[in-house]
Amino acid sequence: MDYYKESLKLHEKNRGKLSVVSKVPIKTKKDLSIAYTPGVAEPCLEISKNQELVYKYTPKGNTVAIISDGSAVLGLGNIGAKAAIPVMEGKALLFKAFADIDAFPICIETQDTEEIIMIAKNIAPTLGGINLEDIAAPRCFEIERRLQELVDIPVFHDDQHGTAIVVSAAVINALKLVGKQLEEIKVVVNGAGAAGTAVIKMLKALGIEDIIICDSKGIISKSNKNMSQSKQQLADLTNKKALTGSLEDAVRGRDIFIGVSAPKMLNKEMVKSMAKDPIIFALANPEPEIMPDLAKDAGAVIVGTGRSDFPNQINNVLAFPGVFKGALKVRASRITEEMKVAAAYAIAEIIPDNMLSVDYIIPNAFDTGVADAVAKAVGEAWLKKGIEENCDE
Amino acid sequence: MDYYKESLKLHEKNRGKLSVVSKVPIKTKKDLSIAYTPGVAEPCLEISKNQELVYKYTPKGNTVAIISDGSAVLGLGNIGAKAAIPVMEGKALLFKAFADIDAFPICIETQDTEEIIMIAKNIAPTLGGINLEDIAAPRCFEIERRLQELVDIPVFHDDQHGTAIVVSAAVINALKLVGKQLEEIKVVVNGAGAAGTAVIKMLKALGIEDIIICDSKGIISKSNKNMSQSKQQLADLTNKKALTGSLEDAVRGRDIFIGVSAPKMLNKEMVKSMAKDPIIFALANPEPEIMPDLAKDAGAVIVGTGRSDFPNQINNVLAFPGVFKGALKVRASRITEEMKVAAAYAIAEIIPDNMLSVDYIIPNAFDTGVADAVAKAVGEAWLKKGIEENCDE
Repeated sequence: MDYYKESLKLHEKNRGKLSVVSKVPIKTKKDLSIAYTPGVAEPCLEISKNQELVYKYTPKGNTVAIISDGSAVLGLGNIGAKAAIPVMEGKALLFKAFADIDAFPICIETQDTEEIIMIAKNIAPTLGGINLEDIAAPRCFEIERRLQELVDIPVFHDDQHGTAIVVSAAVINALKLVGKQLEEIKVVVNGAGAAGTAVIKMLKALGIEDIIICDSKGIISKSNKNMSQSKQQLADLTNKKALTGSLEDAVRGRDIFIGVSAPKMLNKEMVKSMAKDPIIFALANPEPEIMPDLAKDAGAVIVGTGRSDFPNQINNVLAFPGVFKGALKVRASRITEEMKVAAAYAIAEIIPDNMLSVDYIIPNAFDTGVADAVAKAVGEAWLKKGIEENCDE
Repeated sequence: MDYYKESLKLHEKNRGKLSVVSKVPIKTKKDLSIAYTPGVAEPCLEISKNQELVYKYTPKGNTVAIISDGSAVLGLGNIGAKAAIPVMEGKALLFKAFADIDAFPICIETQDTEEIIMIAKNIAPTLGGINLEDIAAPRCFEIERRLQELVDIPVFHDDQHGTAIVVSAAVINALKLVGKQLEEIKVVVNGAGAAGTAVIKMLKALGIEDIIICDSKGIISKSNKNMSQSKQQLADLTNKKALTGSLEDAVRGRDIFIGVSAPKMLNKEMVKSMAKDPIIFALANPEPEIMPDLAKDAGAVIVGTGRSDFPNQINNVLAFPGVFKGALKVRASRITEEMKVAAAYAIAEIIPDNMLSVDYIIPNAFDTGVADAVAKAVGEAWLKKGIEENCDE
């Protein structure tokens, strides 16, 4: 089936995919008087007296805006706000389908960091959470960090953390199959953009100590000269021995390769140079760093990609609906590292150990209970943190 | 029935009133591949090549944002962004119920004119139109004017133009009943805020020449000293003879009183001082400038209010759904004076002459065909203007 052609037809036929509907009847004058004036003055007044009641009388607590400036959309690059709409709309559908969250796209015309922060901050009153999406690095890091300081609702850049959570879940289950421990393995990440950065932070939070990360010039190392601030930060987080060299050098002897980079970066020789029972997550979309059959030929035991037409699809939809659902439920003001780790374990544990196989290390999007399990784990992690903080005082 | 209590219950039970839903199925991997990745890349690419296609492949052309800073909400005043949500949500329901338009509230935290303009401009890519709502005067005038210069979609401050359109429709039909002509009548407007300003502009566009407008200090006149810029503009538009005095002086001998001010501004003596067959539109909410029974006692032939529990409800819902529906259909880039006048006549003409009575000069919100008739008239007015402009060249 030609998904591209079908997609075009679907979007044209329905003029997009989202619709806003009423949860209450508007059929009579009486309906109007209750849902609108004069009755509506009452919830307004209540909220004006106690701002917290906005969660009781409005959809705020179940509403997420998907905010993008269209600067890094799918593999398409900087296609701008209007062309980004179908992706953001699609994301909103997933929020609805998997977590019953009301989400809508806000595609922003400006690509100026300060303006994006200011806009997102100011539209936050109606929102329970903000999902940043497809914003180019390094701008995305600053926007997320500073916006989160300004608002009391969770800000989550899905390209970073959604990917990192699902990769982590895949790593956890893959290691069970090959019988290795998090603390002892060596990982190489290729791609030092938004996703790569989030992946290494999260792998460290899981307890993996030996990680090296490569960009298009090779291994990122403290000994490199003239690095940007974000690369410098990556060098500080990884590669304790300050190794230098090419991706080829980096891959040698590693247990896991994680690609968030570009097609065909990995070849059979490189896979063969890895440690025993290599694990490959080749997430470049739509064409991965190495095709699964080639990787398997070269000895890879477990291969995951971003694609739905191969086993082990590393798909953000396993994470973000449940992460937001859990955070909204406990009214978390942000998504902590602990919540992300909890989400990764919740996703991994959906598959009972006796069902795990090299072709089924990660649940399918439509496996039942994923979002609810993630939501439960994420909510509990937030509440636990709250208890710990109170005990510390 | 206690609408206030019922409204509170309704809002709590449903956690607000709006929901975002999918127009397409998301049940299988195949659905995901078409509505989201990889298929969604195709409409994105098409739009990136030709920005106009955003109307073909996304909901933009049927989407309206209801933008408020919560600074002048109903009769409640400056209650802020969060407390304004139930009203903006209610408005969105009306867009849906009466015109099948997908609308959602954007309640903005800042009340700074420049910031509001900048925010609204930058979220416009996903929108087919912008409904400004409950923003205090005089800020609302500048926001509307400057925002409209910056975007190629209609910007419509409903508190101004919606009210003006429906008042105009009521005036048109009331004059039919008392047998007077637009050109010969004398009108007094009490209240020089957003609504009053829009009302006098529109009455002039209808062909009424003798209008005076009062604020809380009395008649606005060119001879007054130290007026603000907006009052100065009103003085230029009205009161050719530069009359001065109190509201009491202003009302004397007038055919129509239009109140967009405060309760109890008009008394029986003042009504008795008006011209033969006085027409009173007392729109202060919830308590009008004069109660209908008092006005009738004093000789008023026709009385309209903003309330649903009296005849002749002057209700914006008669205008804005159809105005936007018509403008979106012809993809108008703004709402012109001609479109507003066309809307007023379309609303007036819903009631056949033989059905007109002193208690039925304006349709009810639920009379069938109102929004469609308004949409048709508004769309035709836009297209006609386009033809005239082309002929002028």
